[in-house]
Amino acid sequence: MAERIASEVLAERVRGGDPRAIARLITRAESGESECRHALAALYRDTGRAHVVGITGVPGAGKSTLVSELARTVRADGRRVAVIAIDPSSPFTGGAILGDRIRMSDLVSDPGVFIRSMATRGALGGLARPALDAVDVLDAGGFDLVLVETVGVGQDEVDVVRAAHTTVVVNAPGLGDDIQAIKAGILEIADIHVVSKADRADANRTVRELKSMLMMSMPEGPEAWQVPVVPTSAETVTGFGELLAALDRHREHLYRTGEIETRRRRIASTRVVKIAEEMVREGFLKARRERIEAMLERVVARELDPHGAALELLDTVKERIRDDEQAV
Amino acid sequence: MAERIASEVLAERVRGGDPRAIARLITRAESGESECRHALAALYRDTGRAHVVGITGVPGAGKSTLVSELARTVRADGRRVAVIAIDPSSPFTGGAILGDRIRMSDLVSDPGVFIRSMATRGALGGLARPALDAVDVLDAGGFDLVLVETVGVGQDEVDVVRAAHTTVVVNAPGLGDDIQAIKAGILEIADIHVVSKADRADANRTVRELKSMLMMSMPEGPEAWQVPVVPTSAETVTGFGELLAALDRHREHLYRTGEIETRRRRIASTRVVKIAEEMVREGFLKARRERIEAMLERVVARELDPHGAALELLDTVKERIRDDEQAV
Repeated sequence: MAERIASEVLAERVRGGDPRAIARLITRAESGESECRHALAALYRDTGRAHVVGITGVPGAGKSTLVSELARTVRADGRRVAVIAIDPSSPFTGGAILGDRIRMSDLVSDPGVFIRSMATRGALGGLARPALDAVDVLDAGGFDLVLVETVGVGQDEVDVVRAAHTTVVVNAPGLGDDIQAIKAGILEIADIHVVSKADRADANRTVRELKSMLMMSMPEGPEAWQVPVVPTSAETVTGFGELLAALDRHREHLYRTGEIETRRRRIASTRVVKIAEEMVREGFLKARRERIEAMLERVVARELDPHGAALELLDTVKERIRDDEQAV
Repeated sequence: MAERIASEVLAERVRGGDPRAIARLITRAESGESECRHALAALYRDTGRAHVVGITGVPGAGKSTLVSELARTVRADGRRVAVIAIDPSSPFTGGAILGDRIRMSDLVSDPGVFIRSMATRGALGGLARPALDAVDVLDAGGFDLVLVETVGVGQDEVDVVRAAHTTVVVNAPGLGDDIQAIKAGILEIADIHVVSKADRADANRTVRELKSMLMMSMPEGPEAWQVPVVPTSAETVTGFGELLAALDRHREHLYRTGEIETRRRRIASTRVVKIAEEMVREGFLKARRERIEAMLERVVARELDPHGAALELLDTVKERIRDDEQAV
C-alpha cells in the first residue's frame, strides 16, 4: 500500500506543478514501467491540454540552439514551456550534447521552464515509452508547450517525434549538397520546416530547395495544411516569433479540421504498443529467474521451440503483472 | 489443415537441402511470424549443427567483399556455406549494396552456397526475428557455416550479430584516425577482428592499434579466448584461409570450454524476447480492427490509460494466437 499512497501524493504534487515532483516521477518512468504505473494512471486524466511539439533533424542541424531560443520566445509570450531532450546513448557524444545544454542555463532558474535530458535506456531498450510518459507528466503539470527534441535517427526516435501534435524538422544550410532530412528519411514527417543558421549566405538556397521540394508533394484542398519553411537565426535572434506563430497556427489547424483526433489516436497506438512491448521485456528480465532459466534450457535442449517459449513468456508476463497489482 | 500440411512438406524439403524450399520458408519468415510458425517449429529440432558467424563493421569497412572471399574459402575447403546479408532499410543505400552483391555472382550458381539479402522490415519493425529464423532454416538445411552480415548500427542489428556463435568485426584502415569500431560501440563484441584492405600501406597501423587496444582488456587464464586480429586483402586474396582457421579455432574453443552453452542460452533469450515482442505487434496490427479502434477511442477519451490498454492488448494477443492455433 505504501507505494500506492506515495504515488497518489506524487501525482497530486505534479498536478500542482511542483518541479521536484515532476522530476521525480520522470525519473521513476525512466527506471521502469512498473515503478510509476499508478502515478501515471492517476495523472492520465489530467493530460491533453499541452501542445506537444517534436523537434528533429540530423546531427549538427542546430536543434538544441533552436529549442533554447524557442523556449525563450514562449516565455516572453507568458506561457510555460518544458523541454525533453533525448540524448543518444553513445558515451562519446554525451559530452557535446551536455555542452549544448549549457546555453540553456539562463532558462534553468525560470520556474516557468522545465528542462530534462533523457538518455537511451539500456537493458529494457526503447526510449519512446519513458519519453512519452514524461510528456504526460509535464502535460498534467500544466506546461503549455512541451518540446521533445531528438536526433532523427533510429525507429524509436522517429516514433517519439511522430507522437507529437506538431513535428518540426530542423535543416541547416551547408551540411551537404542535398537536403539532409531526405537522406535521414524525415522530410515527410514535418508539419513545419525550419532552416537554422539563416544568417549564413547559403541559407537562402536551402530555403528555396526545401520549398520546391514541398511544392511537389503539396496536398490539395482549402483545408489542407501547407507546410511552411521558417528561417531562424540564433546569431541574429530572428525567426523564433515566426516559428511560435507557425506552431500556434498548426495547433489551431489540427483542432479546426478535427485532425487532432487522428493524431491522438496515432499517439495512443504508439504508446500502447510500446508499453506492451516493454511489459514483455520486463516480464522476461524480472520474472523469477529459475522459471526463465528452465524455459531457456528447454529451448537450448531443443525440447521447446522459440515460438512456443515466446507464448510461455506472454503467460509469465500476465501472471507477473497480476501478482504486482495484488501486491499494491 | 492445408497450411499445416504444406508446412510439413516444406520442412521436409528444407531438411533435404532443397534451395527453393529454403528460399520459400525464409520468405514466409520475412512476411510475418505467424506465416511460418509450424514449419519452423518442425525444423527446430534439426538445428544446432551449423557454425553461425556474425560479421559486422561500420559502413565502408568492406564486409561484403570479405564475406564473398570467405565464402569461396569455405567452399574450397569442401564445406557448404550460407550468407544472410542484412541490408539497411534506406532506399538510398539499397543500390550500392546490391552492387556489392554482384561480386558474389560466381557463387550464386554453386549449389553448396546460399545467398540471401534481407531488408529491414517496415510496420512490424525488427529484422532480428526473421533473420534468426532464416539462420535456423539454413542450419536445418545442412549448411556447415552460416555467415550473417550486417552494418553495425542499431540495437536490432547488434542483437542479430550477438546471436551468432562467433562474432567478427571488420575494420578498414584509413576510415579515420581512430578505430571505427570503438565509435560504433562494437569493439568489445568481437571474437575475431579483421583488418580488411591489408594491402594498403596504412593497414599495419590499424592492426597495431587494434592489438594494443585488445592488450588492455585481455582476459586472464589458460582457458581464456585471445581475440586475434586477422589482416585480409581481397585485392591480393590473402588472409581468408587464416580467417577460416580462426573461426574453426573459436568454435573448437566454445565446445572445449563449455562456453557454447552460455552462448546458446543467450541466443535463445534473444529469440524468445524478439518473437514475443513481435507477437504483441502482430496482435495489435492484425487483431480485429474494431476491437483495437474501440480500445484506442477509450484511451483518447481518457477513460482508459495507456498502461491499462497495454494489458488489454496482451490479452488480445493471447486470444488471437489461440484462435490461430485452433484454425490450423
